Amino acid sequence: MGSDSPRNPEANATSDGRPVYLEDIPRHEAQESLRQAMIAAHLWGVLGSEVIPLDENAFGRVTAVPIWARLSSPNYHAAAMDGFAVRAEATVGAQPSSPITIAVRTAAGPPGAACSKYVDTGDPLPEWADAVVPIENVESVDERGRAAADPRAPAAVRIRASIVPWSHVRPMGEDIVATQLVLPTGHVLGPADLGAIAAAGHDQITVARKPRVAIIPTGSELTPVGSPAGPSGIIEYNSIVLAAQINAMGGVATRFPIVRDDLDMISGAVARAAEDHDLVLLNAGSSAGGEDFSAAVVSKLGRVLVHGVAVRPGHPVILGLLQPDSAGQHPTRPIIGVPGYPVSASLTVEIFVEPLLATWLGRSSWAPPTEQAELTRKITSPPGDEDHVRVAVGRVGGRLLAAPLATGAGVITSLVHADGIVVIPPGMQGVEAGERVSVRLHRSMPEIDQTILCVGSHDVTLDLLAQFLARFGRRFVSANVGSQGGLLALRRRHAHLAGCHLLDPQGAEYNIPFIRHYMPDVPVKVIALTLREQGLLVRTGNPKGLTRLDDLARPDVLYVNRQRGAGTRVLLDHHLAQLKILPDSIRGYDREEYTHLAVAAAVAGNRADCGLGIAAAARALGLDFVPLFKERYDLVMAREHADGALLAPLIALLGAGEFRDEVARLPGYDVSVMGTVVLEDG
Amino acid sequence: MGSDSPRNPEANATSDGRPVYLEDIPRHEAQESLRQAMIAAHLWGVLGSEVIPLDENAFGRVTAVPIWARLSSPNYHAAAMDGFAVRAEATVGAQPSSPITIAVRTAAGPPGAACSKYVDTGDPLPEWADAVVPIENVESVDERGRAAADPRAPAAVRIRASIVPWSHVRPMGEDIVATQLVLPTGHVLGPADLGAIAAAGHDQITVARKPRVAIIPTGSELTPVGSPAGPSGIIEYNSIVLAAQINAMGGVATRFPIVRDDLDMISGAVARAAEDHDLVLLNAGSSAGGEDFSAAVVSKLGRVLVHGVAVRPGHPVILGLLQPDSAGQHPTRPIIGVPGYPVSASLTVEIFVEPLLATWLGRSSWAPPTEQAELTRKITSPPGDEDHVRVAVGRVGGRLLAAPLATGAGVITSLVHADGIVVIPPGMQGVEAGERVSVRLHRSMPEIDQTILCVGSHDVTLDLLAQFLARFGRRFVSANVGSQGGLLALRRRHAHLAGCHLLDPQGAEYNIPFIRHYMPDVPVKVIALTLREQGLLVRTGNPKGLTRLDDLARPDVLYVNRQRGAGTRVLLDHHLAQLKILPDSIRGYDREEYTHLAVAAAVAGNRADCGLGIAAAARALGLDFVPLFKERYDLVMAREHADGALLAPLIALLGAGEFRDEVARLPGYDVSVMGTVVLEDG
Repeated sequence: MGSDSPRNPEANATSDGRPVYLEDIPRHEAQESLRQAMIAAHLWGVLGSEVIPLDENAFGRVTAVPIWARLSSPNYHAAAMDGFAVRAEATVGAQPSSPITIAVRTAAGPPGAACSKYVDTGDPLPEWADAVVPIENVESVDERGRAAADPRAPAAVRIRASIVPWSHVRPMGEDIVATQLVLPTGHVLGPADLGAIAAAGHDQITVARKPRVAIIPTGSELTPVGSPAGPSGIIEYNSIVLAAQINAMGGVATRFPIVRDDLDMISGAVARAAEDHDLVLLNAGSSAGGEDFSAAVVSKLGRVLVHGVAVRPGHPVILGLLQPDSAGQHPTRPIIGVPGYPVSASLTVEIFVEPLLATWLGRSSWAPPTEQAELTRKITSPPGDEDHVRVAVGRVGGRLLAAPLATGAGVITSLVHADGIVVIPPGMQGVEAGERVSVRLHRSMPEIDQTILCVGSHDVTLDLLAQFLARFGRRFVSANVGSQGGLLALRRRHAHLAGCHLLDPQGAEYNIPFIRHYMPDVPVKVIALTLREQGLLVRTGNPKGLTRLDDLARPDVLYVNRQRGAGTRVLLDHHLAQLKILPDSIRGYDREEYTHLAVAAAVAGNRADCGLGIAAAARALGLDFVPLFKERYDLVMAREHADGALLAPLIALLGAGEFRDEVARLPGYDVSVMGTVVLEDG
Repeated sequence: MGSDSPRNPEANATSDGRPVYLEDIPRHEAQESLRQAMIAAHLWGVLGSEVIPLDENAFGRVTAVPIWARLSSPNYHAAAMDGFAVRAEATVGAQPSSPITIAVRTAAGPPGAACSKYVDTGDPLPEWADAVVPIENVESVDERGRAAADPRAPAAVRIRASIVPWSHVRPMGEDIVATQLVLPTGHVLGPADLGAIAAAGHDQITVARKPRVAIIPTGSELTPVGSPAGPSGIIEYNSIVLAAQINAMGGVATRFPIVRDDLDMISGAVARAAEDHDLVLLNAGSSAGGEDFSAAVVSKLGRVLVHGVAVRPGHPVILGLLQPDSAGQHPTRPIIGVPGYPVSASLTVEIFVEPLLATWLGRSSWAPPTEQAELTRKITSPPGDEDHVRVAVGRVGGRLLAAPLATGAGVITSLVHADGIVVIPPGMQGVEAGERVSVRLHRSMPEIDQTILCVGSHDVTLDLLAQFLARFGRRFVSANVGSQGGLLALRRRHAHLAGCHLLDPQGAEYNIPFIRHYMPDVPVKVIALTLREQGLLVRTGNPKGLTRLDDLARPDVLYVNRQRGAGTRVLLDHHLAQLKILPDSIRGYDREEYTHLAVAAAVAGNRADCGLGIAAAARALGLDFVPLFKERYDLVMAREHADGALLAPLIALLGAGEFRDEVARLPGYDVSVMGTVVLEDG
């Protein structure tokens, strides 16, 4: 895949080893370079149009010509109800006590002010009529003035109230007047638009041709989805993400097979793609590393316009133009070298491809809704960069909050969990916590208002909880910042609740001393979620036969530790002290890892024989688990939210039921405490 | 199509002529009836699931099971940059002035703190390493300490700064930890989700089966789109609108051929549709008129649960359940009788079908974004009804405004032009102008902020203007309330500009006296748009040889007039007075029509020989036009908006250019005045 490295420093190396420096072009300048080159190549503007039938498949297409009405709708004055067409003047003077009787017109009879005719809703009004009296407002009578046998075919109608002209009539052109503009060019067709176009007398529509976009994944280490991935193989999924984006933007994506890192092979694929596509996306290899061929490919087949844009993520993007060779083998086409990291790739498509497709389709570029929100923690941005920060958004106590997600361009889940994007302009080096920022929302506010923000220690039961809460229309967003971080977030009112498993140093009590210490002024309600086992992660079959904490001091046992401050480290140190085992006597005590999974990986990779952690980490890597202790994992809620409508389904789930049963089935979990109120401030 | 009549009175008549009354069930009760019946029939909940390949076509599908990670991502500690893997402790003490040299590990050499190895971005970190030094931060040297020939394959690297552990490393599980929840059930898959699922080791997804929805249009007077419509034939387009809605909601719509108004034929079509569809929509005939068979069909094939819901539009909706007959010919299926008027039909699908599809797909029901806006004029709602009012939304001088659109259920353009819906709850009989209402938006606020609101007299050049402004990203929304209405709207700051053609009674000046009269305190800028011809609309070939206004007094000429107060009537009366022609001498002077088009229709329908109007009305109905006068049509802008960014493209278009040329080509228009500033307050 080549590199798509963090930006500072920006240097990387060419294939001959000398470092090269990517450019640092401001986004607008980069886009303008591409635009000018495309204007010069006559590639800027609507690509072309096609005529399609007017049916439901026209939904989402973009009009390529203005649509003028051929017909009026209705195309005549139409009855708006079932009833009798009359001239309104014939009803003047009608009273409940003194009805007026109006003869029904016979085929032979003369039209006139004093005749009437039965009409169904939608029927054309007779030329001599200007109003309809609804059938339920007349008495249909026969020649002798008695109730008519068929109220729709009487000899006359008796009317006991006068009506004004044009009552119960849809006048001609009420909806559409022939020759009027129904829809302008560049309109994205919605369902009702299709109806209006039909009503205006059209049976086909001229729409913009869909831009064809080739997506070429490159990288010798890539394996396609569905093929067995080797231990160091990387599953190629960017092309799927990009294709889904392109299709949603109104283009037609073609995914090419993976091409390995070879200049000629990549050049060949690009040249072939350019034959019958309007745009080529060359994924990965856009940076300047040893396996980054994109710039060389674009140079070989055309011209690099921009290599390196001052946006993050996505900096190593290449904007270029493929140009026909002497044999004229492929037409002039824009090409974009899309960085390899998935977040960079996806944002590159949003930033550079979406406006291009909008231009080719003749529609406006996407304008996501924005809301002002309060940033929950400081964002630091590289100076000079336009930084696109993914944020989770939720409302806590009336304040709309934006919580920055993982910044790594390789973390696709940061896009999955993003409710929006905060764009930090190039002039700013960051934004302080608590400042108001403008968030481009990916979700509607009603959805966001159903979001429960849980910040703190992560546990797999929270994932299950999210799954169950979705049934009640709640989005459960959990951010893993550790137990202490969760309590601090609650104090700052940045979350509705926190997951917490902090054993006090005396080993007497979970969580409560810490709650009082970290958030003394915040009333809380604490409900136990589960007892979970901590134990030793060991290789399958437990080859060293480890059963107790004392075994860690055995000379043949190599341990891997968690970092100072981690709840699991606190737990270990507490129990070592109780057992009077000196840390110095444990081989590997000073080798620290930062997550449960990293501990498991060290064991799985034979770099240690065991480590302390939770059963889920063992399961994740197929290790065995030797349970040692049970610790209580609580949900700490700000008192003001605990009894609110938002959290009500969560509280309900903690009672007996399906959620509890499912947690009970997880290895290493004990639900006997679930739902117990541990602490409740008044 | 049967009737879908305005609600008050609610009575209509059965086929035997007796009026029947539709029910008036509150919406929530109606929905609950259907829900309970479906629960009893085991039809409530996710319909079923299917396994589909993980590719871009999964976009928009809904997860039917939770997706748990099979793999971690990355699945190992991975280099985040091209560079040299080291143990961070080996770099401690490195300074610019005193570098540390670290030997590159050979295949045979022992691993250890003091060795290094070249890695490309994405490569697994060697087990002994815990950091990467980017290649541009090292000096690659050969055995003699000189620059290495290949900087990626040196004998050693010289490092001049220490680094901390895990620098430039993506730790295992940074993105996804095996066993974690990637996505819950009921999640609508976006592009990034597809990537995350692939990264988590899946190559297929279990998604909810798409609900199959049959749409059966009924009505003897209907003709399909594309077939020649007779003079009183109605083009059937509801099925297209409904199908596009259903597909956008995640269902699969099948459009059936039009069935004529015949109980047995409709019953047959419904029974067939129920065989292989999950829901049947029977369009029109849901009311209680003479040609309304839907209720009878549902009763015959099953059970009517609700007939008549207290919503407007859409009141005559039928909710029912088809039940197998003794032969078990069709399974139990919900059926909805959808009212015939297009706005009612479309809203019925939004109100009743969308939540049903959401349930069947297991996703949340749609929650459109809402904004508070100020109502520009009073809404009167039938008491007891939940009234869904279509509104245009725009921002004028910082205030967000909601302008109610046409209320007629037959006016599909009210849906086309609607930027949102204001729901008036059943308890309210209306909302006063100026009150704040909650608008369910169909458009994003950035789009709405690009909206120019033009209220006043309509002219076809405004349609052209809309067409041109779309190129500049502006939505031009014009509401036709007449010239005087436009000036009043400007005074209330309900519009950015008004189209106006008011001749003062002395015939000396256009518009300015009226502007000063109606909006004395509002500074304005008035720019002339065009001179347009008013003249006589006559049948093709001008059979009566009309050439002058005097001809109206001829005894063989039958005239059709506009209503008192219309600009065109003012113009006529002014010129008649000048010519000293008495109104009494004009046959038909007292026959009033309310629009240009209605005048044209009276002439086309032989009900009059001529009428005064604009050329466009003649063109609309293929009439001839005898030009008589030129009148000036001005754009009146509130001074505060005239020079703003929003209107800038409009002002620019009034100069020489394509727009002006296109107006000049319209018959009856003179652009010599276009762009002239008629009045500009300081």
